[in-house]
Amino acid sequence: MHNKHSIEIRVRYQETDQGGLLYHGNYFAYFEMGRTELLRSSGYTYREMEAAGAFAVVVKLDCSYKRPARYDDLLTLNTEIVRSTKFKVEHEYTLYRNEELLAIAHTTIGFVNREGIIVPVPEWMAIE
Amino acid sequence: MHNKHSIEIRVRYQETDQGGLLYHGNYFAYFEMGRTELLRSSGYTYREMEAAGAFAVVVKLDCSYKRPARYDDLLTLNTEIVRSTKFKVEHEYTLYRNEELLAIAHTTIGFVNREGIIVPVPEWMAIE
Amino acid sequence: MHNKHSIEIRVRYQETDQGGLLYHGNYFAYFEMGRTELLRSSGYTYREMEAAGAFAVVVKLDCSYKRPARYDDLLTLNTEIVRSTKFKVEHEYTLYRNEELLAIAHTTIGFVNREGIIVPVPEWMAIE
Amino acid sequence: MHNKHSIEIRVRYQETDQGGLLYHGNYFAYFEMGRTELLRSSGYTYREMEAAGAFAVVVKLDCSYKRPARYDDLLTLNTEIVRSTKFKVEHEYTLYRNEELLAIAHTTIGFVNREGIIVPVPEWMAIE
Repeated sequence: MHNKHSIEIRVRYQETDQGGLLYHGNYFAYFEMGRTELLRSSGYTYREMEAAGAFAVVVKLDCSYKRPARYDDLLTLNTEIVRSTKFKVEHEYTLYRNEELLAIAHTTIGFVNREGIIVPVPEWMAIE
Repeated sequence: MHNKHSIEIRVRYQETDQGGLLYHGNYFAYFEMGRTELLRSSGYTYREMEAAGAFAVVVKLDCSYKRPARYDDLLTLNTEIVRSTKFKVEHEYTLYRNEELLAIAHTTIGFVNREGIIVPVPEWMAIE
Repeated sequence: MHNKHSIEIRVRYQETDQGGLLYHGNYFAYFEMGRTELLRSSGYTYREMEAAGAFAVVVKLDCSYKRPARYDDLLTLNTEIVRSTKFKVEHEYTLYRNEELLAIAHTTIGFVNREGIIVPVPEWMAIE
Repeated sequence: MHNKHSIEIRVRYQETDQGGLLYHGNYFAYFEMGRTELLRSSGYTYREMEAAGAFAVVVKLDCSYKRPARYDDLLTLNTEIVRSTKFKVEHEYTLYRNEELLAIAHTTIGFVNREGIIVPVPEWMAIE
């Protein structure tokens, strides 16, 4: 399993608000895309994980907004697994527009099965 | 089953776009609320329908936008079942800000079971 | 100005609903991306249009949903200007997963200036 | 200015994801509603604040998810100003379903003018 990956995301009009900026709550869909593509870059898909009965659940998150993102900006999102224990995985995200850091965020996710019972982090998700 | 119902909806900041208006794609969540509350006003819930294995699927829709809605506007949504056949239900929606008509829309919905197979409209949903 | 363009869009987890499908109201953000990229492919950006004082407003739309889209599907969206008059532009959208048609939609957009007054469609947007 | 306020929010179908839960990124629109209604309960509106040239910007946030919220749940959101300085206001949010705590969150917001320049927190927003 790779522990970091970068993707590009273009800000959609629908994601802005009347303040003229990317709405602060919409960053989390980007971070989810970061996790999805980090998995794919390692040869896995989150779709298959769910099909195998492991559903990721966000337990906590934080985000620090440094500078605003705007409509049509082409952003670079770096996603990194910074910590992995038996039951939790912590990702860090840094979002850039060119060299400019826009946001830093962290999420802690756990896994549950179809019945909502907590299950261990899939072994292959451990960082070597 | 009642065939019409009205609810009030306050436009959220997150639902606006940088043009300063309620984003045109966000009206459909309102119309879904209209269907949900029309059901509830008749003594049913969509949650129970899904638990009983009938999932509503939007087959087609149209919307005509007459005047823009804005952040913090308090809107009135009228939802009416205008046609009901064995396999399809058509709703009409009119969205107002006070006396001012903002939008008229229609949706046609069908129902599928858990396996995605088309099933008839629940009988109690027929308009008397 | 080109009159048609295709883009690829990957369905995000956040865009699904508990029915397990791409939420029907979320297709319109995709169609907006189609318009944005059709413009860009012609050497224009919608961002510049707004900076120049022309704001696109959706006047009406319709969508016919043929088959459901799901999380992580890689879709192809074709966007075409099918009609253009002094004050309105009509786009048609067809959304595919490989060879499978998922949805056909149309939007009619007009333009307003910063004060919300209707202005003509920019001349360069006419289809030759 | 009141420093706390409670509102009720019904979870919309559109806000769920295919995991069957309220999507974790959608809580922030609820917290924004909490801020909006706390202001209104004190005789102010955020709309007027923007018209007067003070735009709220979220500088950082955190959220701890205790238990999942589901479609059609009727939730109670408590919003409280827990700290207010010359340039920043910190809110705390607790989200309940009946007696059950679902989430605790915090946001720190600052204010900018139309040009994006930082301005002090409006004086009336101070907690007495």
